[in-house]
Amino acid sequence: MIKVAILGYGTVGSGVFEVIRKNKDAITGKLGDEVQVKYVLDLREFEGDPVQEVLVHDVDTILNDPEVAVVCETMGGERPAYDFTKRALESGKSVCTSNKELVEKHGPELLQIAKAHNCSYLFEASVGGGIPIIRPLRTSLAQEEILSITGILNGTTNYILTKMETEGLAFEDVLKRAQEKGYAEKNPDADILGFDACRKISILTSLAYGKNVDFHDITTEGITAITDSDFAYAKKMGATIKLFAKSVKKDNKYYAIVAPFIVKPENPLYAVKGVFNAILVNCNMGGETMYYGKGAGKLATASAVVADVLDCARHIGKHLDVKWEDEKLEISPIDGAVRRFFVRAASTDAAQIKELFGDVELFSDVVPDEIGFVTEEMSEAEYKEKAAKLGNVLSMIRVD
Amino acid sequence: MIKVAILGYGTVGSGVFEVIRKNKDAITGKLGDEVQVKYVLDLREFEGDPVQEVLVHDVDTILNDPEVAVVCETMGGERPAYDFTKRALESGKSVCTSNKELVEKHGPELLQIAKAHNCSYLFEASVGGGIPIIRPLRTSLAQEEILSITGILNGTTNYILTKMETEGLAFEDVLKRAQEKGYAEKNPDADILGFDACRKISILTSLAYGKNVDFHDITTEGITAITDSDFAYAKKMGATIKLFAKSVKKDNKYYAIVAPFIVKPENPLYAVKGVFNAILVNCNMGGETMYYGKGAGKLATASAVVADVLDCARHIGKHLDVKWEDEKLEISPIDGAVRRFFVRAASTDAAQIKELFGDVELFSDVVPDEIGFVTEEMSEAEYKEKAAKLGNVLSMIRVD
Repeated sequence: MIKVAILGYGTVGSGVFEVIRKNKDAITGKLGDEVQVKYVLDLREFEGDPVQEVLVHDVDTILNDPEVAVVCETMGGERPAYDFTKRALESGKSVCTSNKELVEKHGPELLQIAKAHNCSYLFEASVGGGIPIIRPLRTSLAQEEILSITGILNGTTNYILTKMETEGLAFEDVLKRAQEKGYAEKNPDADILGFDACRKISILTSLAYGKNVDFHDITTEGITAITDSDFAYAKKMGATIKLFAKSVKKDNKYYAIVAPFIVKPENPLYAVKGVFNAILVNCNMGGETMYYGKGAGKLATASAVVADVLDCARHIGKHLDVKWEDEKLEISPIDGAVRRFFVRAASTDAAQIKELFGDVELFSDVVPDEIGFVTEEMSEAEYKEKAAKLGNVLSMIRVD
Repeated sequence: MIKVAILGYGTVGSGVFEVIRKNKDAITGKLGDEVQVKYVLDLREFEGDPVQEVLVHDVDTILNDPEVAVVCETMGGERPAYDFTKRALESGKSVCTSNKELVEKHGPELLQIAKAHNCSYLFEASVGGGIPIIRPLRTSLAQEEILSITGILNGTTNYILTKMETEGLAFEDVLKRAQEKGYAEKNPDADILGFDACRKISILTSLAYGKNVDFHDITTEGITAITDSDFAYAKKMGATIKLFAKSVKKDNKYYAIVAPFIVKPENPLYAVKGVFNAILVNCNMGGETMYYGKGAGKLATASAVVADVLDCARHIGKHLDVKWEDEKLEISPIDGAVRRFFVRAASTDAAQIKELFGDVELFSDVVPDEIGFVTEEMSEAEYKEKAAKLGNVLSMIRVD
């Protein structure tokens, strides 16, 4: 019998409680042992909810109980989650979490503590909700050199972009609708400005290369500048627009960016619609693999936490090694990243465009009084220079 | 230092040798230990190939060497692979394989032997080539009750169907081209008749439910009857046609089938083109997750074998538990499976169709002298009965 405690009976915590109870037989069958929730920590009461039987208000009850082998930290936020996690690990209890903020900020330190105390710190649910991506990176792709990771890591923005495309609506209108439906927060900045995706690609990149990415080093653009005209151009090109969170290793340099990208149907991420998330990983041996599913939601996220619980249960007294050193992974300035760019210029002077950007195809019939075109491959620095010379660039979207 | 032997220096075996050599630094970094190929078994000589230094012709050299901790069985076929695998496991060496035939036929027995000798038998590469699917099923989805698995598990047939769709070609013409390009075997029956996909869904279903599926119990239809007219209808419906390998758990019954299906764009498998494979798993808690990548190919398959090697290396002296009992998983007769059916009937008598199948939409302008329609949901048995009554059914394709 593996005894578990859950810290926080909010959306994810109550989901963890539900998954462990409802799937008891499946879990026992696969694990060969029973998983039982001994405690749930929450300051509130939940009269009439079966959780009430195991509810405690003092974290020490959990931390001082040697029977508790695994702790699920589903509180979110930095404090007191950080302290509780640290203390749990120090007392040899493995911790499984959905807390992206804590993982991003203190991952290497907490992993160190877990290692020192022969227990584990796992966080599958912190990126991509119910999509197995962190465990595959750690196990199934451990033999690979990872060349790039490209993720649709934020369901809110993917929902908004999908609706803009399929219904021809303006960004503000879709955002409003998404807020009404609960797909977007009242304060949607973390999503629509790209910060949420940025933290997630920061975690994935740290795991891919074993060193610590500072998310401040990642160029981050949101989707607030994307208009229906952009989608009109995308359609003309047989493409769509997605918010990509991307990191690339090239010539021993590392680049990372969160930004809208023009995406062609050949890219498996093209078909990822609505609130779904997906992560495309390109490796030097096995090539591209993609992982797709619900990037958020109570049960999907909770399910990922419970997968980690089972992994810990299989390795009691052992540290599941997650390579993520405190040493900084140097992210190169985005100026050096090479790609193509879709440009809209308020000009009818095709000659000037061709002089600067070569013999590119011009789209002059999509929006009046402007020309759209896609450049050849060039560095971000080179693009900036040419764009400055052109002088009348209205907007630019990177092309994947 | 983890010492490894490779049995068979064919396509996959030489790939395993290459992955371990080329990605030595990445592997050592992730594992914290070096993996070294001590022996490669092959009857042939490979003058000028670095493998020559470690080449042996007698399997006993490997089996009697206590330094060898992990054996990669990449010979294929049942014999002598079965005997070598058994002897390796009996001497406490873990075995990692790409040998679908052996796994399908002797999986439960070999897992038992591995368990008895505190070593592991892993076979990620046997299904879906480079796509992590077996490890996710065993770990990331261990907490789930699996409701269905739907796979595009054969690259050859997916390539053929993709080409038929995009280029409007006949089955025979595409097959011929695929054979010229090396995407299809000279004797393509195992692929085009669905047998390859059948063995793979048999393995996945056994793992999902922990009991043994006999692949003979799986209704298996290939793609040889699919014509350009079928694709014309699919196009009319905004859909495509894919060879699905599918198993479903419903009301405590298990159904399994390999057959062409009409697939709508809403299904994430719709976008899986060409030689790529993907597996969509639907679970009772986390919902749908999909795993996508190269279903075959030297390095993709080899990479999956090496992922297993690393897993074994992390668990030396321990059995990695894979639930797959010898007890038979009863597959229910397909007659009880419920779905919709796309039917082509050589009739212009719309009234008779509507009388039998209700108020369905009729497509009468796609192919002269026939009517196409999609039924409401019904069991396969009910469909058969109605189709017999209609009397003039030209063809039927199931609808996902």
